Amino acid sequence: MSIRIGIYGYGNLGRGVEAAIRQNEDMELVCVFTRRPPETLTVRSEGVPVYHINKAAEMKDKIDVLILCGGSATDLPVQTPEMARLFNVIDSFDTHARIPQHLANVDAAAKEGGNVALISVGWDPGMFSLNRLYMGAVLPEGKDYTFWGKGVSQGHSDAIRRVDGVLDGKQYTIPVPEALDAVRSGSEPTLTTREKHTRVCYVVAEDGADKAKIEKEIKEMPNYFADYDTTVNFITMDELKRDHSGIPHGGFVIRSGKTGFDKENTHIIEYSLKLDSNPEFTASVIVAYARAAYRMACDGLTGCKTVFDVAPVYLSPDSREDLIKNLL
Amino acid sequence: MSIRIGIYGYGNLGRGVEAAIRQNEDMELVCVFTRRPPETLTVRSEGVPVYHINKAAEMKDKIDVLILCGGSATDLPVQTPEMARLFNVIDSFDTHARIPQHLANVDAAAKEGGNVALISVGWDPGMFSLNRLYMGAVLPEGKDYTFWGKGVSQGHSDAIRRVDGVLDGKQYTIPVPEALDAVRSGSEPTLTTREKHTRVCYVVAEDGADKAKIEKEIKEMPNYFADYDTTVNFITMDELKRDHSGIPHGGFVIRSGKTGFDKENTHIIEYSLKLDSNPEFTASVIVAYARAAYRMACDGLTGCKTVFDVAPVYLSPDSREDLIKNLL
Repeated sequence: MSIRIGIYGYGNLGRGVEAAIRQNEDMELVCVFTRRPPETLTVRSEGVPVYHINKAAEMKDKIDVLILCGGSATDLPVQTPEMARLFNVIDSFDTHARIPQHLANVDAAAKEGGNVALISVGWDPGMFSLNRLYMGAVLPEGKDYTFWGKGVSQGHSDAIRRVDGVLDGKQYTIPVPEALDAVRSGSEPTLTTREKHTRVCYVVAEDGADKAKIEKEIKEMPNYFADYDTTVNFITMDELKRDHSGIPHGGFVIRSGKTGFDKENTHIIEYSLKLDSNPEFTASVIVAYARAAYRMACDGLTGCKTVFDVAPVYLSPDSREDLIKNLL
Repeated sequence: MSIRIGIYGYGNLGRGVEAAIRQNEDMELVCVFTRRPPETLTVRSEGVPVYHINKAAEMKDKIDVLILCGGSATDLPVQTPEMARLFNVIDSFDTHARIPQHLANVDAAAKEGGNVALISVGWDPGMFSLNRLYMGAVLPEGKDYTFWGKGVSQGHSDAIRRVDGVLDGKQYTIPVPEALDAVRSGSEPTLTTREKHTRVCYVVAEDGADKAKIEKEIKEMPNYFADYDTTVNFITMDELKRDHSGIPHGGFVIRSGKTGFDKENTHIIEYSLKLDSNPEFTASVIVAYARAAYRMACDGLTGCKTVFDVAPVYLSPDSREDLIKNLL
């Protein structure tokens, strides 16, 4: 029998989840929930109904895991606890500083409903967090570094678009190669924000806009750009659409550490991602963890869990015996 | 209260475990067991007693986890089940093809004793296996590749030393850079054994030995060298000791996979290790998993487990709350 999945929210992430479910034979997409009038939304999977979110409670017994695909700023803090009372749920809540509070809220709701809720699943938080944990446990005397990119930052692209005279824009975060090399040498360098990443912007300006002023305003924007070496390139709308419509991302988690009676040996562990589509990869991680959420619920567990709490064996469709035989 | 550790076998791995325990404040080395006359063995940690292995049963209540540091060929198949009747144990059994049988033997013994036994812990099997599992679960439509090296292969070095006229030798396994690049391109190439790795040998020959004959015999040795491009370098004993006395190793696990409704997007996940000391890194992984074995036993679990069965949260000395706050 398939694991019955519901999608709650049909943006980039929801569409990625829809595609990922097709790659997992033990799963089946039951329906998509939307805040829009459902008749205005057509999903790509044939025969999958679209319901308004206010019908979610009615689907309680027809869905094994509900995948929440809203945003971390305002959607998930409300939706995840609300839905965790009704369903096993999974979200990609990614505001790192607010994870403990979100976890507490979701845990209470999931326990009330007797469900499993998996939060902050994706690649950072998610696979990167896991690697920070594994690396740190294995090499306790050392230092780890996380680099992001090359990739599109949605938040920074939005910030560019709010500048006066800007029609559209995209921002790429890029790790500094020399910083990566220094970390890989095992020297445990101290790196400033500016030394770790550069930011490159592609901006479409309004006709007759003051480009020098736009460039200055972007480069000096506090929190977003002021602490970085930023490059601003002005391009046409056609160029933006042709060359910058993808949502690639990726990054690196690297730890170096010492072992030996006199700490005479150095080890480097590196994990990296190079992703054509940030939302589709995030969705793929979420779908594997949806399987885990379902299995943990079948085992009688309840409450809010994170990737740290999930034994790897829960993630694969293969049996434990096959995994041990083929992958160990 | 510290986790009380015993070491069973004091070779390279046992010494690595001894050093790793010093890097983990929540652990304490209780004693070392040896097959040799105990009075002939001095360990580096002050005040730690050495006992003959036939005294192990007497230490049953004084040790929380016994770390088995013997070899996979003949030691562990006997020792791990035997000791799992008395203690929570952990080993690094690395004969991949025999893991299912070893697991069955150890599982029966551990359940009989009411203990947890963790087998095949290290980096391959171990961290590499984990990454193969995580990567495959996240990108089900794709292909993964494991490369080893640059590093010293003990088995191949031993094989060289058995050749007539050879005094000593070391063998390095080296991944072929072009093969790594092809995998990283996402093209999912089919690679032969010869295309993935080269083997480089440093050989000290006896005075007057027929070097051409030695080189031919090494290069044509079935299973070990015949399927590889092998280079044989003759050097002096002094050079061997000066330049090749370390035990470095490492490698790469890389998976590429497709996502999207029309499989239009490619993703590359890469995990790599660069290790100055193979046994010390293996020991560091084992010690982190010894903590997990202890905690799983405290939770009432019994039987034989693998790295696939261990929730990451069990590995770190930090509390779940701190891990979520600081690493997620």
